[in-house]
Amino acid sequence: MNHVPVAIIGAGPAGLTLAHLLHLQGIESVVFESRSRRDVEETVRAGILEQGTLNLMRETGVGERMEREADHDEAIDIAINNENIRIPLTELTGHKVAIYPQHEYLKDFIAKRIEDGGELLFETTVDSVEDFEGDARENKARITYTGVDGATQQLAADYVIAADGSNSPYRKIITDGGGIRARHEYPYAWFGILVEAPKTQKELIYATHPEGFALISTRTDTVQRYYLQCNPDDTPEMWSDDRIWEQLHLRADSPGITVSEGRIFDKAVLRFRSAVTEPMQKGRLFLAGDAAHTVPPTGAKGLNLAVADVSVLAPALTRAIKRNDTGLLDDYTRLAVPRIWKAQHFSYWMSSMLHAVPGEDHFATQRRFAELRSVLESEAGQRYLAEQYVGRDLPRFDY
Amino acid sequence: MNHVPVAIIGAGPAGLTLAHLLHLQGIESVVFESRSRRDVEETVRAGILEQGTLNLMRETGVGERMEREADHDEAIDIAINNENIRIPLTELTGHKVAIYPQHEYLKDFIAKRIEDGGELLFETTVDSVEDFEGDARENKARITYTGVDGATQQLAADYVIAADGSNSPYRKIITDGGGIRARHEYPYAWFGILVEAPKTQKELIYATHPEGFALISTRTDTVQRYYLQCNPDDTPEMWSDDRIWEQLHLRADSPGITVSEGRIFDKAVLRFRSAVTEPMQKGRLFLAGDAAHTVPPTGAKGLNLAVADVSVLAPALTRAIKRNDTGLLDDYTRLAVPRIWKAQHFSYWMSSMLHAVPGEDHFATQRRFAELRSVLESEAGQRYLAEQYVGRDLPRFDY
Ligand SMILES: Cc1cc2nc3c(=O)[nH]c(=O)nc-3n(C[C@H](O)[C@H](O)[C@H](O)COP(=O)(O)OP(=O)(O)OC[C@H]3O[C@@H](n4cnc5c(N)ncnc54)[C@H](O)[C@@H]3O)c2cc1C
Ligand SMILES: Cc1cc2nc3c(=O)[nH]c(=O)nc-3n(C[C@H](O)[C@H](O)[C@H](O)COP(=O)(O)OP(=O)(O)OC[C@H]3O[C@@H](n4cnc5c(N)ncnc54)[C@H](O)[C@@H]3O)c2cc1C
Repeated sequence: MNHVPVAIIGAGPAGLTLAHLLHLQGIESVVFESRSRRDVEETVRAGILEQGTLNLMRETGVGERMEREADHDEAIDIAINNENIRIPLTELTGHKVAIYPQHEYLKDFIAKRIEDGGELLFETTVDSVEDFEGDARENKARITYTGVDGATQQLAADYVIAADGSNSPYRKIITDGGGIRARHEYPYAWFGILVEAPKTQKELIYATHPEGFALISTRTDTVQRYYLQCNPDDTPEMWSDDRIWEQLHLRADSPGITVSEGRIFDKAVLRFRSAVTEPMQKGRLFLAGDAAHTVPPTGAKGLNLAVADVSVLAPALTRAIKRNDTGLLDDYTRLAVPRIWKAQHFSYWMSSMLHAVPGEDHFATQRRFAELRSVLESEAGQRYLAEQYVGRDLPRFDY
Repeated sequence: MNHVPVAIIGAGPAGLTLAHLLHLQGIESVVFESRSRRDVEETVRAGILEQGTLNLMRETGVGERMEREADHDEAIDIAINNENIRIPLTELTGHKVAIYPQHEYLKDFIAKRIEDGGELLFETTVDSVEDFEGDARENKARITYTGVDGATQQLAADYVIAADGSNSPYRKIITDGGGIRARHEYPYAWFGILVEAPKTQKELIYATHPEGFALISTRTDTVQRYYLQCNPDDTPEMWSDDRIWEQLHLRADSPGITVSEGRIFDKAVLRFRSAVTEPMQKGRLFLAGDAAHTVPPTGAKGLNLAVADVSVLAPALTRAIKRNDTGLLDDYTRLAVPRIWKAQHFSYWMSSMLHAVPGEDHFATQRRFAELRSVLESEAGQRYLAEQYVGRDLPRFDY
């Protein structure tokens, strides 16, 4: 059986970033990814990168194209009943956010991985992981996987990272062993569309309106991403193009700003879920990114949290492998979890403040608007929001 | 029938402050109060005065004793699991809060009212108000009341102010006429005690703990007011002195700080309720203070909101009476309500962040603590909280 120090399941932001960070320390890994390279590179998901994520790309030599192509936003708008209030992120925090789609991020890391000669197996699905308890020197974990040729093979690894996204079966190992899966369901969802249209405006608009929330965001100069609050059980068939445009204009137009229209080429319902698995480790198996936690998209924290997790895991694995020092690795959950809960809070808070809960009473509506006004009319309130929006620095540990 | 420009029902903070402000403009009023002077002057209720309330006392000549006797706090502590974090209110906002009990506030205004020769009828209960619609010049409102001698009498008034507290029957006139009473119930209450003991520490401690919330506040150097989160249907009999001290120490002690003990001479359960009546007026009948709205005590906004209401009503009534200009009076609700909702939000927010909801799940607990930490670890977050705690300036309108 072949052997590798670190086996990584999933070529999403968590898995690919980790493989790259380990490579920089001279530690080799194998990344397994069920989907094709093309599929991974074309699936549109998250789009907002925090300053910490940008810095990591720059500092580790993967930032070149991002520097050239990303849109850097210095503000967001929050619209209350069609009146836009600007939150000057950069003025308030000194930082910008970057609009750089997740699949572009992945393209850069995939290209780098290949350039560096890293093992990155597309269309290869991990079927099971065994023997990940005990000391790495005596006992290797066994990964069974099915490659593109349909043949089942095995690989031995010292450490296994489940970076396999929100449906990860590996967290069950942890909850079965006494871990906790904390969950929260929201009474709304987002109906998301991709549109061939010019930008409505440079910066994002988070619009709250009696009819519900809308988000005007942008992917490129010619492709826009709009979202409308909908019911969790809505289907794309319930949203005709006419209804979409009517609702977008109703909720998000404001004096001087009209949502730009174009050909809608993608419609999808995005569920709102919060979940955190604790601990994020068992023996030499570690969860990272969406495999461990899901945030609703309102805070735009999903990709960034995945990157934060592996910013702890990479130095922790390096110390364990190079110096046989497992201290940081033992502490992985404790070090990663406070940030995850703060991101959960931020996403929950932004969601709750901006969405009308179906059937909410007068008290709830009025309190919500009073909260928004309290935040927006105070420089401190705006800054408190902006700090969380642009994100905290990534965890830094010596390798 | 005798006649007065303004009849005021209730000698609480709203009624007494209004009578005084009108007097300064040369407008006479009659204040009806069911309770005895002694009862009013001895009932311990709210204790925290915002900067705006302090300024009003100073500027209108009722602040002398307050200046001498009030404790001015420059900070509060928030304790998370017995670890105290200081919020330096004054450093953050430039303002202090004053600890000056509501009954002392009332004593000062009662003394002033009497010194000014104002009509202030204790042990006199208003039974009904009629004919408050239409033009004040043609149609006088008729107030029927029962005085200390048991005799029922009547008084005619141009304007009637229902400042009769949270059980006011007069808001029913408004809700019956199409108004809204927005309400929110909380799944917890406060068990409050008065204790003969030295101060635990100078500043208030808002303590959150898995067992529930506790508030360490002070009335004087020798009398302290402590609160423990309890169930809404708890009765004082369920709280023995032993249980009280055990829970206070458990929830609110911290390194170097031990809750000071002494003779408990008052025990009471304080319900948590939010309510707002809109509009706050019908014809020439106006609601002010708790008659219109109730806030849970966590934000310490009750007395201050009552004072804010009458800071709009006083100039509005003055303009109507002196210059026959009812513009401001017509706008009373619209001008008073945004502040009320912001205070509702602040009280709701502080309550939700600091109280464990009985049976709350892991997600709710962890999110709540993450919110507290997000607020407290950010200068902006602390300032956003502090600004609301010390309070906004009072509304100012020309008389
Ligand atoms: C439609 C959509 C829109 C989103 N929009 C936003 C947004 O606007 N902002 C935001 O911050 N976040 C958003 N997110 C969330 C964000 O995309 C995720 O948080 C992020 O992708 C998490 O990265 P990850 O590496 O942990 O997991 P993923 O990106 O999910 O990567 C996991 C990878 O593992 C692979 N895999 C799974 N099982 C196996 C297996 N057994 N063997 C091999 N490979 C396997 C999967 O194919 C996948 O490529 C969105 C998510 C979705 C689904
Ligand atoms: C036990 C308790 C503790 C509190 N603690 C706090 C606190 O810590 N912080 C805080 O901010 N707020 C607190 N509050 C709330 C605060 O005390 C009130 O918000 C404040 O008193 C409102 O002032 P008001 O003038 O509107 O009403 P009130 O002070 O209630 O005055 C109304 C007056 O009208 C009189 N009245 C009623 N009906 C009639 C009638 N028909 N005829 C004549 N007179 C009548 C009543 O006797 C009463 O004196 C507390 C309240 C209670 C009950």
